Amino acid sequence: MIIRILLVFSAFITGCAGPGQSRSPSTDPLPSWQSGPAKAAITAFIEDATTENRPGFIPSPERIAVFDNDGTLWAEQPVYFQLLFAIDRVRQLAPDHPEWNEEPALKAAIDGDMAALASSGKEGLLRVVTASHAGMTSDEFDAIARAWFAKAEHPTTGRPITSMVYQPMLELLEALREAGFKTYIVSGGGVDFIRAFAEEVYGIPPEQVIGSSLETEWDPTERAVVRTPKLGFIDDKAGKPVAIQRVIGRRPVMTVGNSDGDLQMMQWTAEGDGPRACIIIRHTDATREWAYDRDSSIGRLDEALTEASERGWTVVDMAEDWRTVFPDR
Amino acid sequence: MIIRILLVFSAFITGCAGPGQSRSPSTDPLPSWQSGPAKAAITAFIEDATTENRPGFIPSPERIAVFDNDGTLWAEQPVYFQLLFAIDRVRQLAPDHPEWNEEPALKAAIDGDMAALASSGKEGLLRVVTASHAGMTSDEFDAIARAWFAKAEHPTTGRPITSMVYQPMLELLEALREAGFKTYIVSGGGVDFIRAFAEEVYGIPPEQVIGSSLETEWDPTERAVVRTPKLGFIDDKAGKPVAIQRVIGRRPVMTVGNSDGDLQMMQWTAEGDGPRACIIIRHTDATREWAYDRDSSIGRLDEALTEASERGWTVVDMAEDWRTVFPDR
Repeated sequence: MIIRILLVFSAFITGCAGPGQSRSPSTDPLPSWQSGPAKAAITAFIEDATTENRPGFIPSPERIAVFDNDGTLWAEQPVYFQLLFAIDRVRQLAPDHPEWNEEPALKAAIDGDMAALASSGKEGLLRVVTASHAGMTSDEFDAIARAWFAKAEHPTTGRPITSMVYQPMLELLEALREAGFKTYIVSGGGVDFIRAFAEEVYGIPPEQVIGSSLETEWDPTERAVVRTPKLGFIDDKAGKPVAIQRVIGRRPVMTVGNSDGDLQMMQWTAEGDGPRACIIIRHTDATREWAYDRDSSIGRLDEALTEASERGWTVVDMAEDWRTVFPDR
Repeated sequence: MIIRILLVFSAFITGCAGPGQSRSPSTDPLPSWQSGPAKAAITAFIEDATTENRPGFIPSPERIAVFDNDGTLWAEQPVYFQLLFAIDRVRQLAPDHPEWNEEPALKAAIDGDMAALASSGKEGLLRVVTASHAGMTSDEFDAIARAWFAKAEHPTTGRPITSMVYQPMLELLEALREAGFKTYIVSGGGVDFIRAFAEEVYGIPPEQVIGSSLETEWDPTERAVVRTPKLGFIDDKAGKPVAIQRVIGRRPVMTVGNSDGDLQMMQWTAEGDGPRACIIIRHTDATREWAYDRDSSIGRLDEALTEASERGWTVVDMAEDWRTVFPDR
């Protein structure tokens, strides 16, 4: 009788089960993943990490998993979505800035002429970014970005931008958190842009987003942090492990990316002692998403793909390994 | 009978009470704090923050509390402890660097001549820092700092350096975490130096430490993050709110500091909507600790003290408000 009461009572308190306790084996935390080597490797890594006495066990504080964003957690075609935001913002502000028509890059953005914008090169793109992302407080930028996310649609699929995220990755993020991992974004995209949707969409709070940034400064009169047009940190390639060390101060045990921009953080992850997981999302699905790798200008996956095969990193084949790509709307 | 079993069983599971659940009112989470206005203000803020339907309620994700380190969480007299580490390290390396005897600042450090070191100015101090803190990987530095903390003693009290922390602040950190706050350090000191003891001593993990830093870079051959002698970010004064926005991406609701270097982050905290707490630790206790404020070169508290009185921020009088200063060893 007492045993029975304890069992019944236990059922009421499962909500307070701590990180690291394994879930019932009958529930698949990754239903959108096809059975196959990628899913098996990921599942085994998580199970080992949370099972004491296994060689793959990872103490709770060290369970840090980092994810690239563009092309890893959401799509990045036909252009990085942040560029869509920048162009929309430039167009919105253009009536107050007639002088922008004299600048080729801004003129191209105002006209929606993507070819002309592309031909303005890195400097032109940077001008579009600074015109749209600078000159306001951090709170104001957050409100601007949130307003955009509430309405923005993808140019070819017509889906809300925030539903261009990958359902299998949402499941992986959640499974990791259930297993006591801290999930981080480490993106070449703008940190405050990503923060404006990451908590709601990915369940990742602002303090677990690392990204590129404009320089900011303290305005003693307004008593606010303001965004300057000066380029700050570029969180790409070699910048990624540097930023992870600076912000997290601990080497991740799992890194997930999709391009050569993620190679250095994968190498750093792989070089650590103990169990490690480096996972590459490979865009192989021209029907449901896009197919591109070694020759792409967006999300080029070349050196990292070679290294993955040499080192036995897990390569997720989007067409083969994912039952679903995008979530139901 | 059933009730009794449930009560007994409940006693076994209190360890899993989640953040935000209020503790029994009979347990004082701040036993080292004297009853008085400072303790009352802090206690009321935490209780309101965690009680729904009160105007002072703060949703869980917004419960971010930031703490200065030197002079706020541990002592900072007669010199910042990180300088002791730098000097010890320079002395340790000196036999391999006979050329250091030609540099006045390094020579002063080797000789333990604090007056000569001080007279070498900011540039001299920076030289001692770079000679001791640069030229190794992030992992190597972490090991070096941990080895120092394991043995370092305070020059006048003889206590282990890591027990020069303030017992009342350890209690406050813990009480905040029990109430679902994330506790951060935001220090002018070196971020990786603080990380080497903060988790063990304060219960604050590396990813919740923000501080000053040397520039680091990715070494593609070693596949490691290495520390360069180039000064990176100075996390002091106006740098503090800038760093908080960059790393946390969210304005804190509570800021605790002890000097003018903390003023800007307090102003930023205070300007936010909703309940806010700005708390200043005032060094008034020449018997048990040190007494200094407006005229001190270390931890000068002048403008911030004036502003605290104008704005009604909480000022903790160390002599009056703290029953104990340092923990039992």
